[in-house]
Amino acid sequence: MSNMNIVLGIDIGGTNTSFGFVDRAGTIIAETSMETNSNDAAEDFVFRLHHRIEEVRTGLPPHHLCGIGIGAPNVNYYRGTIEKAVHLNWGEIVDFAGLIRKYYNIPVSITNDANAAAIGEMLFGNARGMQNFMVITLGTGLGSGIVVDGRLLYGNRGFARELGHTVVDPAGRQCRCGKKGCLETYASATGLVRTALLIITERCDPSLLRTMDFQKITSKMIFDLAQKGDAIALEAFDQTAKILGMKLADAVALTGPEVIFLSGGLSMAGDILLKPAQQYMEDFLFHAYKGSVKLRLSGMAPGKSAILGAAALIWSELDL
Amino acid sequence: MSNMNIVLGIDIGGTNTSFGFVDRAGTIIAETSMETNSNDAAEDFVFRLHHRIEEVRTGLPPHHLCGIGIGAPNVNYYRGTIEKAVHLNWGEIVDFAGLIRKYYNIPVSITNDANAAAIGEMLFGNARGMQNFMVITLGTGLGSGIVVDGRLLYGNRGFARELGHTVVDPAGRQCRCGKKGCLETYASATGLVRTALLIITERCDPSLLRTMDFQKITSKMIFDLAQKGDAIALEAFDQTAKILGMKLADAVALTGPEVIFLSGGLSMAGDILLKPAQQYMEDFLFHAYKGSVKLRLSGMAPGKSAILGAAALIWSELDL
Repeated sequence: MSNMNIVLGIDIGGTNTSFGFVDRAGTIIAETSMETNSNDAAEDFVFRLHHRIEEVRTGLPPHHLCGIGIGAPNVNYYRGTIEKAVHLNWGEIVDFAGLIRKYYNIPVSITNDANAAAIGEMLFGNARGMQNFMVITLGTGLGSGIVVDGRLLYGNRGFARELGHTVVDPAGRQCRCGKKGCLETYASATGLVRTALLIITERCDPSLLRTMDFQKITSKMIFDLAQKGDAIALEAFDQTAKILGMKLADAVALTGPEVIFLSGGLSMAGDILLKPAQQYMEDFLFHAYKGSVKLRLSGMAPGKSAILGAAALIWSELDL
Repeated sequence: MSNMNIVLGIDIGGTNTSFGFVDRAGTIIAETSMETNSNDAAEDFVFRLHHRIEEVRTGLPPHHLCGIGIGAPNVNYYRGTIEKAVHLNWGEIVDFAGLIRKYYNIPVSITNDANAAAIGEMLFGNARGMQNFMVITLGTGLGSGIVVDGRLLYGNRGFARELGHTVVDPAGRQCRCGKKGCLETYASATGLVRTALLIITERCDPSLLRTMDFQKITSKMIFDLAQKGDAIALEAFDQTAKILGMKLADAVALTGPEVIFLSGGLSMAGDILLKPAQQYMEDFLFHAYKGSVKLRLSGMAPGKSAILGAAALIWSELDL
């Protein structure tokens, strides 16, 4: 029996780093996660990561490791570097692909986590065969990976496309990026919480949200209350959907997708977010695009899309 | 001596249609224009156009006509059709490329005028060798042609990208497209006039604009007054630049250009629009892009860019 071909997909987050071995069909053979411990130097982190990878690898059946794909924040795809990542204490520029190559003499590729999600959707998810689509990751922030005419958009600097930092209101909410009124301060898990709190101050409806410790309110709580008919929670989803729909209509005008996939924690709200967002987007679409763009949930299993996206990145390059 | 190779570039507008014979270096050998007479049926228009083309052609030195490129409003590039063009009375869908092919058995290609402007900039203008740039045409409306990673963006439906119909204010100005608050109702020659009139109603500064017949105020008049220091005219340019700069920053976040070229009538205002627009764009840019995007004037001669763009479209396809 010949050894099976697999790749390693690594997802680096500010808190946790997860990785998994993935075959060409998108099956995760083995996976685990570890603390990123973002105060470590990048070299020390990669040293630890290498050891964990090899620990897991010893338990695998005979295999050929064909390549390593990495999803991370603030990646410059052309350079293979992570630059000014606010949640990682690694300074201005880290040659992360280079650090990994010190341990592995096989193809290594790194891209932004939202770009990886888009490639994953194309290889393993609901965008198979599609030429024009977009993946929006709705978590703490809002990330975007955009495919036009069959190719992922990079642009001049090789970063991910940043729909999350387009401007909703120049005098609006403070964003962690330093600007005000960025889309991700409204349309994200944290944005939904901010919106719910604002509605509490503006309206007088009774709501269980009023009885909660503000700092502990999560998007999941707001979702649970919305499902029970809580008026404040429902209004928070509606306002979030409206702003998201408006900015998605702008993104359609610029990049022309046929489907926009939502992924990430907040997307698990499903129709309570998806349906009004689709309707608001439709309202704001230029006439030539009306009725031509669908909003859908990602086809990647929740919690698996980051590893699968990183694996898809390297599979897609090995396939060339 | 061998015959010279030339192409025909045609620009179809709601009022006038212009065309010219252009060599591979971008020299216009001969050109002319005629009334579009948009009440004519498309077949009759193409019949007249063909005759005018052949009239001009008899005056040319010996040549080989290699192809025909056409720029027009509301073109579906994939189908070669003009669809629902509001300024042309040609119904839902006209197979314009097909009508031209009835007279010419050579390659014919048609695209949106803003896309043609982008291809022209790449072949004959200031974007030679650039992989990531955008051309914004500022005339009656606002058109956009976007090149990312060396390729013009089409997207799902094959129309031009429509930055002009992204939303500035959902409760804002009525747009001719049916929506409210589209960018082109602010950032265009007509948008500038609307803004100047609004400022007149809001402020009390003396201005020559107050003495004019409102319906006759043009963007050129506002430009001339701004150059003389008229406060209302200057404020109109500043407000226009601010809205344009904000939406250009959004477009940068989605498509990553290194240069944005302005063309069309309003771009002739030059620094009085360009400088504040660059500054406002910079204010709204996500930190990863700050300082990396330049706003520049088109390198195509004013009034020639439409014909040159249409010619560049077919040259670029013949070059493949």
